[in-house]
Amino acid sequence: MTALKVFSDSPLDAATTRLLLDGTAPYEVLFPRTAASSVLAQADPDLAFPLADIAFGQPDLESIRRSDRLKWIHLSSAGFTRYDTPEFRALVAERGVVVTHSSSVYAAACAEHVFALMLAYSRRLPQALRSQAASGSAEWFQLRGDSVSLREQSVVILGFGGIATALVKLLAPFEMKITAMRRQPRGDEGVPTVTAEGLPAALATADHVINILPDNPASRNFIDSARLVQMKRGAVFYNIGRGATVDQEALLAALRSGRLAAAWLDVTEPEPLPAGHPLRSEPDCFITPHIAGGHADESGTLVRHFLANFQRYLAGAPLLDRIM
Amino acid sequence: MTALKVFSDSPLDAATTRLLLDGTAPYEVLFPRTAASSVLAQADPDLAFPLADIAFGQPDLESIRRSDRLKWIHLSSAGFTRYDTPEFRALVAERGVVVTHSSSVYAAACAEHVFALMLAYSRRLPQALRSQAASGSAEWFQLRGDSVSLREQSVVILGFGGIATALVKLLAPFEMKITAMRRQPRGDEGVPTVTAEGLPAALATADHVINILPDNPASRNFIDSARLVQMKRGAVFYNIGRGATVDQEALLAALRSGRLAAAWLDVTEPEPLPAGHPLRSEPDCFITPHIAGGHADESGTLVRHFLANFQRYLAGAPLLDRIM
Repeated sequence: MTALKVFSDSPLDAATTRLLLDGTAPYEVLFPRTAASSVLAQADPDLAFPLADIAFGQPDLESIRRSDRLKWIHLSSAGFTRYDTPEFRALVAERGVVVTHSSSVYAAACAEHVFALMLAYSRRLPQALRSQAASGSAEWFQLRGDSVSLREQSVVILGFGGIATALVKLLAPFEMKITAMRRQPRGDEGVPTVTAEGLPAALATADHVINILPDNPASRNFIDSARLVQMKRGAVFYNIGRGATVDQEALLAALRSGRLAAAWLDVTEPEPLPAGHPLRSEPDCFITPHIAGGHADESGTLVRHFLANFQRYLAGAPLLDRIM
Repeated sequence: MTALKVFSDSPLDAATTRLLLDGTAPYEVLFPRTAASSVLAQADPDLAFPLADIAFGQPDLESIRRSDRLKWIHLSSAGFTRYDTPEFRALVAERGVVVTHSSSVYAAACAEHVFALMLAYSRRLPQALRSQAASGSAEWFQLRGDSVSLREQSVVILGFGGIATALVKLLAPFEMKITAMRRQPRGDEGVPTVTAEGLPAALATADHVINILPDNPASRNFIDSARLVQMKRGAVFYNIGRGATVDQEALLAALRSGRLAAAWLDVTEPEPLPAGHPLRSEPDCFITPHIAGGHADESGTLVRHFLANFQRYLAGAPLLDRIM
């Protein structure tokens, strides 16, 4: 294993680069000549890639296809849309390449972000923070009366993985009625879990619908006009999964008709949503720019998570967050 | 007791007035000729008041002083500044008048409001909601990196009553280091509790300082420049108590010097704060217009809480939320 080489195209600063080099020593780390702009951006092919046994970052598909050395790909994101195709799955299966992702790195922050959005909705923070209402005014009574406690309200979580697991813990003090949806319920979710077949009944009574679905052929436009009609009138929709899982025209119509009381989106299609997009001016649509997973020392967390997996790889132990 | 009369100057709508009448029947409820503008506004003297055995609302001090029938005052607010004087306490003690307030009505909402503010700070929601940053841009990296989890951070809560008790439960999943300050620790707070003497040490390490102090002579300007200097550089200050407990000039200076990273205020002095007040244009000062206790069907909760106490009164049982 002395010839083991790691290719890293993650955009790291000096401190985290040092962390990566120290954590992988005595093995060599190869860096691309052009650094990636973000952990979400796919890198261009690089001359060093064919020498790598391990790729950490967002390696480009063509380089992976051409490599005859690659044994493990550790993606620097939680989402893995561009790798989630039958062709890619077949390729890595045939070559015996293991694929892991960085779900654990972002799960806590994503859960806290959507929880913050739920509380911001519940306490009408966007409206309250721009109000200068005097006590006793109509606006003041409205603001106070519009605030609704999350306590004992019902919530449907679409997509049950690390983020949902963390979110369920944060929601515990509110004693909410939680239903999760996942493709294949395992029975260990800790909350009632349905498949897509059981979803209409759950949506019919949910006060909050939280979308954490990844983007893949099965999830694209999963939230369409038919799904929106299944939701209770006045429900609130949150999306921290991927923008492509939502039919945004249908979402806009649901907001305008009052079917949805509000939509809180961290992800859109495209990103960023153009300044003139009608969702931007919809009064009950609130958008954050794909930052749900962000947190202080994010690159450090990312590298430490990779290094934990690297030690497992060296020891021949099962890898964390394996997806293929 | 058949002659028992309740005077109510709370601003109730038709449904909650009906609730009050039904819940107090067969006893008579007297209403003032002029309705109060809010539960916080003191009513003018009314001709019906001298006939009342019980006052529910914000009875004016002169009417209370003149009454020779009054046995119980149930205040429609959690704060009771205008009644919290040695003269008033002596008066009700001498007359044997019991005083209760509506703390329980607002505690859950107040706790959820300040918790929402903490998460909005933690996830940088004001900045994120107005950003249209593209993935990989400097602004995007900044937003992601500025988000800091509440997990395992430390918090000091000034004033430990119903709101703090509710807040501590909401914070539980974040495993924060909580210290409370109250005038007379009882030992049943469930978290380490100090008096004002022990406060400097607690403030020195607190990431979040939450002020829930009521307004009384001892608490006025409690947060002054000396206290602010005791806080850790970069601490975040929240106020859902009363505006008069804070020296706002000192607060402004602490924000401008970077001593405080941010201030989130639901209460100010005066209210509303004038549009041109420098705190309004301070970039890291966020103000909601005294709505922390607001919630849907607030009047209903208020009346039900009074009625629960009314049944206790009739049964000769100890009253809830007694303050004098």
